[in-house]
Amino acid sequence: MTASTLSASQVQQYLADIFPQFDASIVHLDKEGAILELATDVRHLRPGGTVSGPTMMALADAAMYVAILGNIGKVALAVTTNLNINFYRKPAPGKLRAEARILKMGARLAVGDVLLYSEGVDQSVAHVTITYSIPTQ
Amino acid sequence: MTASTLSASQVQQYLADIFPQFDASIVHLDKEGAILELATDVRHLRPGGTVSGPTMMALADAAMYVAILGNIGKVALAVTTNLNINFYRKPAPGKLRAEARILKMGARLAVGDVLLYSEGVDQSVAHVTITYSIPTQ
Amino acid sequence: MTASTLSASQVQQYLADIFPQFDASIVHLDKEGAILELATDVRHLRPGGTVSGPTMMALADAAMYVAILGNIGKVALAVTTNLNINFYRKPAPGKLRAEARILKMGARLAVGDVLLYSEGVDQSVAHVTITYSIPTQ
Amino acid sequence: MTASTLSASQVQQYLADIFPQFDASIVHLDKEGAILELATDVRHLRPGGTVSGPTMMALADAAMYVAILGNIGKVALAVTTNLNINFYRKPAPGKLRAEARILKMGARLAVGDVLLYSEGVDQSVAHVTITYSIPTQ
Repeated sequence: MTASTLSASQVQQYLADIFPQFDASIVHLDKEGAILELATDVRHLRPGGTVSGPTMMALADAAMYVAILGNIGKVALAVTTNLNINFYRKPAPGKLRAEARILKMGARLAVGDVLLYSEGVDQSVAHVTITYSIPTQ
Repeated sequence: MTASTLSASQVQQYLADIFPQFDASIVHLDKEGAILELATDVRHLRPGGTVSGPTMMALADAAMYVAILGNIGKVALAVTTNLNINFYRKPAPGKLRAEARILKMGARLAVGDVLLYSEGVDQSVAHVTITYSIPTQ
Repeated sequence: MTASTLSASQVQQYLADIFPQFDASIVHLDKEGAILELATDVRHLRPGGTVSGPTMMALADAAMYVAILGNIGKVALAVTTNLNINFYRKPAPGKLRAEARILKMGARLAVGDVLLYSEGVDQSVAHVTITYSIPTQ
Repeated sequence: MTASTLSASQVQQYLADIFPQFDASIVHLDKEGAILELATDVRHLRPGGTVSGPTMMALADAAMYVAILGNIGKVALAVTTNLNINFYRKPAPGKLRAEARILKMGARLAVGDVLLYSEGVDQSVAHVTITYSIPTQ
C-alpha cells in the first residue's frame, strides 16, 4: 500500500464539487485501490427490498473512479468504456460497500475490479470489472 | 417476428404494478425482442449533460426483462446474473432508446443483447449483453 | 454497406504473411464488418465432439481484427483489450462461421460484436463483444 | 482455506482421463480456488513472441473448472456460459500461471475470477471472470 496521490478527503471534496449528487463515502484510499460505502435508502431499493442493480453498478463505477483519482490525481474527463458485472447474492438493504483495486494504470486505459458487499455479510454479493479511458494530458 | 406471448400494453401494465418506479415506454414487443424509450430528465443526466451510465444500464436491463416477459410470459422472479456494457459514444440528453434482442431463451438462462440510441442519432451509443436466470417453474 | 478499405483477398494475404497459422477464410468484408469461416477438425474439438471455447474465441477475435483491417487498413499492432463471450448453444463440428460488425471505429478504441454459427444451423451458438486498442499512428 | 473435496492429484488424473489434451499442471487446490501453470511453447505464442489470447483464455477456463471440481467434486458436464477477459500487459513467453478464486458456488451457477501471470513478473497480465452452469444432479 503506497500513499495515494490525493487523500481520501481531497477526493471526497473534489467529487462533491463536480458531482453534487455523489452520495457515497470514501472510507479508504491508497495507490492500489479504494473502498466506498453507500447508505442505501428507498431510492436504491427494488421490489423485494434488495439493492437495485443500477445502484450497485453506480457505486462500483464510482469506486473505480475514486481509485484512479487516488492513483494519478484529478482527471475529470476519464470515462468508463467497459463495465462487466456478475450478480450472485442478494444484496441486503443497509450499507453497500465497494472495494476497488487497480489492476493496470496505463497511459490510455485503467483496468480494475470491484467486489461489492452488504453490511455485516462476509461474502461478496457482486463482482465488477471496469475499464476507464484516460484522456491524453 | 412472431407475436409475443404478452402484448406490449399487458407488459407495460404488469410492470407498472410490480415496479411502480418503472418509467420507460414499451414501443415495440415481439417474440424476438423489445424496444423501450425513456424520456430522460435532470435525474438521468451527469455533469456535462450526457445521460448517466446507470441510466443506460437500467434501461438496457429493463428492455431485456420486457423481451423475456414478451417471450415466455410473466416470470417476476427472473434475475439478472450478468451484464456487460460497452460505452462508445456520448448519449445526448432527450429520449434514450433501447433495442433488445433475445439470442437464447433457455429453460434456465436467457441471453440477449441491447443497443442503446440517442433520439435522432443513427449510430448507437452503447452495447449491452445481459443474462437472466429463469426460475424453475 | 460501403466498400472496405482493403479487399477480402488483400486482408487474407496480409494475414497469411503476418500470422502464418491463420487458417480461417474471409468470406465477406465491407466497411461495417466481416464474415469468416473455419473448417474445424479434431484439433478444434473437445470431448463430446463440440467445438472448443478457445476455438470460438480465436475465430471471433480474428473476425473483429479482419473487420478493423477492412475499415481502416493495415494496423498490425492493434491489440485486443477486452473480450466478453456468452456460450449458449452447442456448436456442432463442421464449419464455424463468425459474423463481426463494427459498432464504433474510434481513434483509440474499436468496439464490435460477433455472432458465431455452426454450419447449417440458423440460430447462433455464441455472442462475443470485443474491444481493440488502436495504436496512435 | 478449507481442504478441497478432491485433491490436486485426483483432479489432475481425472482431467488426464477426460481431456487427454489437458497439458497444464495443478500446483494448488483448495475449496476456495486453484492455481495452474502452463509451460508455453511455440504452439501457444503469436507473432511478436507473446502468449496468444486463446491460450490465456483456455488456461483461465481450465483453472476455474479445476476450482469447481475441487469444491464440489466431479461434475463432468459443467459448461462455461460466460467468460470476460481484460488483457492489459504483454504476457512473456515461458510459464503462464492462473490463479482462480471462487466467488460463488451456487446450485446452478458458479462464478469466479482468474488472474493470469507471466513467470517471474509480479503484476498480472490479464483478468478473467467466468461463469459455469452446473448441471442438476
